[in-house]
Parts: sequence; C-alpha cells; structure tokens
Amino acid sequence: MNLITSVDNANVKRWCKLKSKKYRDKEGCFLIEGEHLVLEAIKQNVALEVILDSEEIFPIDITKYYVTKEIMRKITSLETPPAMLAVAKKIPEKPYGKKLLLIDSLQDPGNLGTIIRTSVAFNIDTIVLGENTVDLYNEKVLRATQGLIFHINIIKRDLNVFIDELKDNGYMVIGTNVNYGSDIQELNLHDKYAFIMGNEGNGVNKAILDKCNNYVYIPTSDACESLNVAVATGIILYELDKKGDINEK
Amino acid sequence: MNLITSVDNANVKRWCKLKSKKYRDKEGCFLIEGEHLVLEAIKQNVALEVILDSEEIFPIDITKYYVTKEIMRKITSLETPPAMLAVAKKIPEKPYGKKLLLIDSLQDPGNLGTIIRTSVAFNIDTIVLGENTVDLYNEKVLRATQGLIFHINIIKRDLNVFIDELKDNGYMVIGTNVNYGSDIQELNLHDKYAFIMGNEGNGVNKAILDKCNNYVYIPTSDACESLNVAVATGIILYELDKKGDINEK
Repeated sequence: MNLITSVDNANVKRWCKLKSKKYRDKEGCFLIEGEHLVLEAIKQNVALEVILDSEEIFPIDITKYYVTKEIMRKITSLETPPAMLAVAKKIPEKPYGKKLLLIDSLQDPGNLGTIIRTSVAFNIDTIVLGENTVDLYNEKVLRATQGLIFHINIIKRDLNVFIDELKDNGYMVIGTNVNYGSDIQELNLHDKYAFIMGNEGNGVNKAILDKCNNYVYIPTSDACESLNVAVATGIILYELDKKGDINEK
Repeated sequence: MNLITSVDNANVKRWCKLKSKKYRDKEGCFLIEGEHLVLEAIKQNVALEVILDSEEIFPIDITKYYVTKEIMRKITSLETPPAMLAVAKKIPEKPYGKKLLLIDSLQDPGNLGTIIRTSVAFNIDTIVLGENTVDLYNEKVLRATQGLIFHINIIKRDLNVFIDELKDNGYMVIGTNVNYGSDIQELNLHDKYAFIMGNEGNGVNKAILDKCNNYVYIPTSDACESLNVAVATGIILYELDKKGDINEK
C-alpha cells in the first residue's frame, strides 16, 4: 500500500494546487471530492487517480494513493474530510446541439452547479459558459451539480460572437425582459433554441441581451422584484422542455 | 453622536449574542444586515434600533448607535462590513390563509431564504415551518429572502398535527412523489391548498408525507434523479399560482 504520511510530499502539494483555477487550467485537470462524484468520474472515464483515506478498501483498478486523515483534511475543501478524492481530466467539449443554455457572468458557484443539474433534468444538450462566469471546475460548482456535470456537454465561448453564429444558423435566441418580453407560457418555441441567463445582481450584459431575437418573462406578484437566478432558470427550462415535448409530438 | 469605540461595550456584546438562535428566541429579536434589509425593516415597523458605521448619515428618526469599523466587523456575519445593521423584533404570526407552503426539516439557510422569496413571487400567503427546519432568523436565511421575509406570513407548527387540522378544514394537502403522484401539470387544484416540501437529502418525513391527500411530481429526464429543493419548490409554486389564476377566472 502506497501510504503518504508527509504533508510535504510532492503529490500532496500537487493536489492542493488544484484548488486554484490557474493551476487547473495549466494542468488540464481538477479535483473531485466524495464517493458519489469520484465513482461517477470513474464511470465516465475521466478519473486519473484516486486519493483514499488509509482505512478505505477500493477494489477498482485505477492508480491509488492512500493518505492520512491529516493530509485528507489538508487537500479537501469539505468540512468533514471525505473517504476519497480523485484527480480527473477536464471534460472535452463536444459539438453543440439544438437545445442550448447560455450563461453570462454568473458568479455564485452554487448557482452554476444547480443550473447544470437542472439543465440535465430538462434535456438541455449543451451549456455555453461566457467568459466572465465562475470556473466550472470550482469545487462548490462540482458539488452542487450532484455528479451531473458528466451528463451534459459544457463549452466555453465569447457569447457576443457566439450569439451571431447561432442566429446565422437559425436558432431562436431567448433572453429575459420584464418590460417587453412575452409571458414564457405564450412563447412559440423553435426546434433550435438558446436561452440566455445572466449575473445574480445585474442579469445579462446589455450588449449581449440586445442581440437576442426573443424575450420572455415569468409572471410574478408585484411584491417580488426578481427571482433567484437558479429558480428562474429552473422555471424557464421546465417550460421550454414541456414546449419541446409538444413540438415533437 | 453616540459613538461606541470599545468592543467590550455592553451593547456590542448584546448584538453579537443575537447571532445565536438561543439568544434570539430569549430576546424575541434578531439582527438585520445591510442597507436594503434595514430600510425594509424600518418600513415594516419592526426595527428597534439601528447600528451605523461612524461615517454614515442617517436621517430617519429611530434609536441610533454609531460604531467603529472594527466593531462593525465584529458584529456582522458579512465578509465586507456593511454601513448599517439593525435590531428588529420578531415578526408576529397572523392567521393562515388559503395558499400555504409547509416546510419540513429543511436545513440549508440559503434554500429557506430563496424559498421565502419564491413564495412571495407566486402568491403563497402563509409559510408554515415544521419543528426541524433551520431558524428563520438565521442571517443567511434573511439575506437570501432579499427583504421579502416582511411580505409574507410565516408561522411555526408541529406539521404532524397541523396537516390533520388542514384536512379537517377541507384543504388539499399536496406532497411530491415520483412513483404514485400525478404530473404537476395535471393536478386539479382546490381553492384551499397546502404544498409540503422537505429536507435537501431525504425529502419530507415519511409519517408526514403519508398524511397528504394528493401527490404530484415534476417530469424530468432519467439522468437526473432529483432537482435542487429550491428549484423544485419554485417550479411547483409557479404551476400552482398559474392554476390558481385559472380557478379565479
């Protein structure tokens, strides 16, 4: 058994560095925490090595490192150190499909993770992250996806340029606007669409929002100025998925 | 100007104690952080005193304390100390109405705050918190409500007993169940209803769930086992509100 006991071990240092985006980008890999996510990464063939609590029995054939509880605590971002971690290679981009979610300048990692989970639930095939959005491989994003990051295509684009490409290819590009949008229920959805969601406080960047060719809103009471971004995205993706079902029938 | 400069000042100690539920319950008041929430509390007549950064000008007629930045940092739970805090008295319970949301054992304060915000958006009139739910006056709950805590009636009950009372009074009591519920779209909603939502990991307590007289689910893709609780609640409240509108027409 390959047991690491020193926090100064080169591997421990390498794993700790994966907490920073800069190092993740340089190495092309990221850290995964907890059994559920680790097993999902192995299933999806992206796990490179597994880091195990010294008491853990792990029968899967993969590079394994055993570490002390102290080292586990040093590497993990979780309050309660998990029984296992893994290093995984970043998930390669695939060509985008017909049902897209575009995300502009979203900042909260929990929101991004939740939106990824919701996107899988409502059959979005590709999520497109704009340049100012929180890093996909942030540990809090990964946790909030509940492992569903491996079940959807996620790509990065300059949204200003990408929306033009989508419109040239006949996509309906949908933004939210309470003033001149239509009730989401009344939208006549095309078979190729991209819905765009923005920052928690400021919404979608104006230059990008102006490029949409359709606008919708969710009707709410007057007392509530706006919904939480993950909730609003959930409701809209739910409605778009229902409409898609009707179109296909 | 009543400027407090010592962290050992009795008022500073009193304000710091309001971070604990036990002390909030004993005193019947809670701490509010940041201008938006403070002004909302004053508007709703629940603010008792305001704690201001020494550089702040605050023309409203209310008991004021000025404190140094160091003290502000000591009292606040926010990373960036706000310009103002307030102590407010707990919001009194009112009789419950026709459109209820019951919450059982919800643990994450951000989720509870978001659900309160969403409930206001979709015209729920009363939120009923079960006994094992995170404290309403937790600072993270308050922040996530975005001030909407003052726009909805929130009461506490033993849900086991309360559901019986609701059923005796002709309420439709709705739980979620993927196995024998109906698609939320197909629900024939009564004019008096209570929807119940549960814990992040375990859902609603089985004994309570068994007492519902109606079950619904949100159709999702097979890849996604469950939605985030705040997102799921958002979609269901959105659907119930739409149905309510139709019933009233």
